[in-house]
Amino acid sequence: MPEFDLIGRLKDLICLPPGSPSTGCELGIGDDAAVLGVPADRELVVCVDTLVEGVHFPANTAPAAIGHKALAVNLSDLAAMGAIPAWFLMALTLPAENQNWLDEFAGGMAELAGRFCISLVGGDTSSGPLSISITALGLVEKGKAMTRSGACPGDLVAVSGTLGAAANALSMLRQGNSPCPDDQRALDFPLPRLDTGRALQGLATSCIDLSDGLVADLGHILEQSGVGASIDLGRLPAPGSLNALPEESRWPLQLSGGDDYELCFTIPRGSENRLKEISLTTSVELTVIGTINGRSGVELLTPQGELFRPEATGYLHFGPQQGEKQ
Amino acid sequence: MPEFDLIGRLKDLICLPPGSPSTGCELGIGDDAAVLGVPADRELVVCVDTLVEGVHFPANTAPAAIGHKALAVNLSDLAAMGAIPAWFLMALTLPAENQNWLDEFAGGMAELAGRFCISLVGGDTSSGPLSISITALGLVEKGKAMTRSGACPGDLVAVSGTLGAAANALSMLRQGNSPCPDDQRALDFPLPRLDTGRALQGLATSCIDLSDGLVADLGHILEQSGVGASIDLGRLPAPGSLNALPEESRWPLQLSGGDDYELCFTIPRGSENRLKEISLTTSVELTVIGTINGRSGVELLTPQGELFRPEATGYLHFGPQQGEKQ
Repeated sequence: MPEFDLIGRLKDLICLPPGSPSTGCELGIGDDAAVLGVPADRELVVCVDTLVEGVHFPANTAPAAIGHKALAVNLSDLAAMGAIPAWFLMALTLPAENQNWLDEFAGGMAELAGRFCISLVGGDTSSGPLSISITALGLVEKGKAMTRSGACPGDLVAVSGTLGAAANALSMLRQGNSPCPDDQRALDFPLPRLDTGRALQGLATSCIDLSDGLVADLGHILEQSGVGASIDLGRLPAPGSLNALPEESRWPLQLSGGDDYELCFTIPRGSENRLKEISLTTSVELTVIGTINGRSGVELLTPQGELFRPEATGYLHFGPQQGEKQ
Repeated sequence: MPEFDLIGRLKDLICLPPGSPSTGCELGIGDDAAVLGVPADRELVVCVDTLVEGVHFPANTAPAAIGHKALAVNLSDLAAMGAIPAWFLMALTLPAENQNWLDEFAGGMAELAGRFCISLVGGDTSSGPLSISITALGLVEKGKAMTRSGACPGDLVAVSGTLGAAANALSMLRQGNSPCPDDQRALDFPLPRLDTGRALQGLATSCIDLSDGLVADLGHILEQSGVGASIDLGRLPAPGSLNALPEESRWPLQLSGGDDYELCFTIPRGSENRLKEISLTTSVELTVIGTINGRSGVELLTPQGELFRPEATGYLHFGPQQGEKQ
């Protein structure tokens, strides 16, 4: 199938649902580039993330899950900025034409795109090993984007949802076992916390999405804010499937398993009530798990007040694991 | 090398030269997403294109050429819209860490980015077979983007530069021969026609960049404008290296070889003088090669007035060559 037909087919499959609000897309798929209108009071928020078969997902992953996740991981980045997603572009590399695979893949992506009313406005297809690179574009009020650099000593560290479900699913799969349905769903169909990100705007002093694991990702906030953090391992929110695990098995999944796509953020001490309100409004669990301090690095404390040292701090894409960075 | 270090290194290597004009980049590499300011009187123009090793460039291509070309092919799309490039993001998939390779690759990309004063504002690196996916973002005056859909019967068809040099180089390489330096340079270091694209704004009734070959790409203009074209093969501008070839060998390279990264556009009949002025101002050859008619498809005419039928119409990414589409 020539490239233009494939993109045309994706355009047909991944489209805005009828009655969607106007998106500011003046020209979409079918020209050399898309032309997009950015309202005068907004800034553009843009990110890119790639999923490679065998690296970011197992080779036998359901096509719908790949389509969903490729978009979801990018929307999760927009969520961490407090942005409203608007458009996306996709560079798709496929080993061979497979109409069924493509329909299911596009279906998974379209379902998520439709849920958040965002539009595929450009794409490129190539022949090669399976990989999906998505550029997501969102809008945020001028000067209101949340960043990684605003955490202050005394702030509380919090996370959305629960940590470790996707890592537990992957761990089970690697052992040749079947994950429980909830964990498999967390691995395959993560839901970006866009509503939570929007609601945290004006409250959170810093924010990041958890893709590489709590210790690694919180580490970016600490590094860019020039602060440290103390995390109470007893407060890490866990999915039901992890409750049965001993702490030594559970904590590493929650700290460095990755693939959570939850938000980790800091809020000023004393704003716990605002957090509870947001949790109620968005129906997403928000849990304070520690505090920011004036030192550097992450200090992990057991419920007994002892220091815990995990073997790895997060998913590293190249070379050997580095061990603790902080 | 962990992902964040690699992106940081690319950030160091591919940066704006000192004294560059302000770019509206409020937040660049190092957060979940970039935050960009779009002036109120401009629209955003955005495109994505991927280069895969072994598909879009031979495995032994110089790293600097890969870095240059990955960015150039995207800027060429912006050129066809009449946009001014502003920022880009890169999703880089690398088989293994190789510092020398990365330095040369980034150097080639940085040289081109610096020439057009554009900034790398986001990236993602993955482990896997070599591929580079770039999202280029540019700006254009509201409502002034050139599209593929405005060609009218009577318009003249024109192209920038010469056609066939890159295809000739690739053909030589495939035969185990060494291309001449000019052709090799055209293949490895194509220069996007950004100045020409800007200058054509307000004159061209349609525009496309030539990546898949003249017949295939002009075909997109014809299809989207609902018109046909008659091309005079005797007027196709050729690089010196192709002049020695017999027409039956030269024309296919120029019509369907691809990788030209020139602009193909239409202008109203009678505006040839404007074209000459733009050619003088931009120091880029602009050649009228045919006319738009009210039929459909491309009609290729030899200097003797006979119909010429090429075997293939352009580079197709998937499946077998389709032969003539029009």
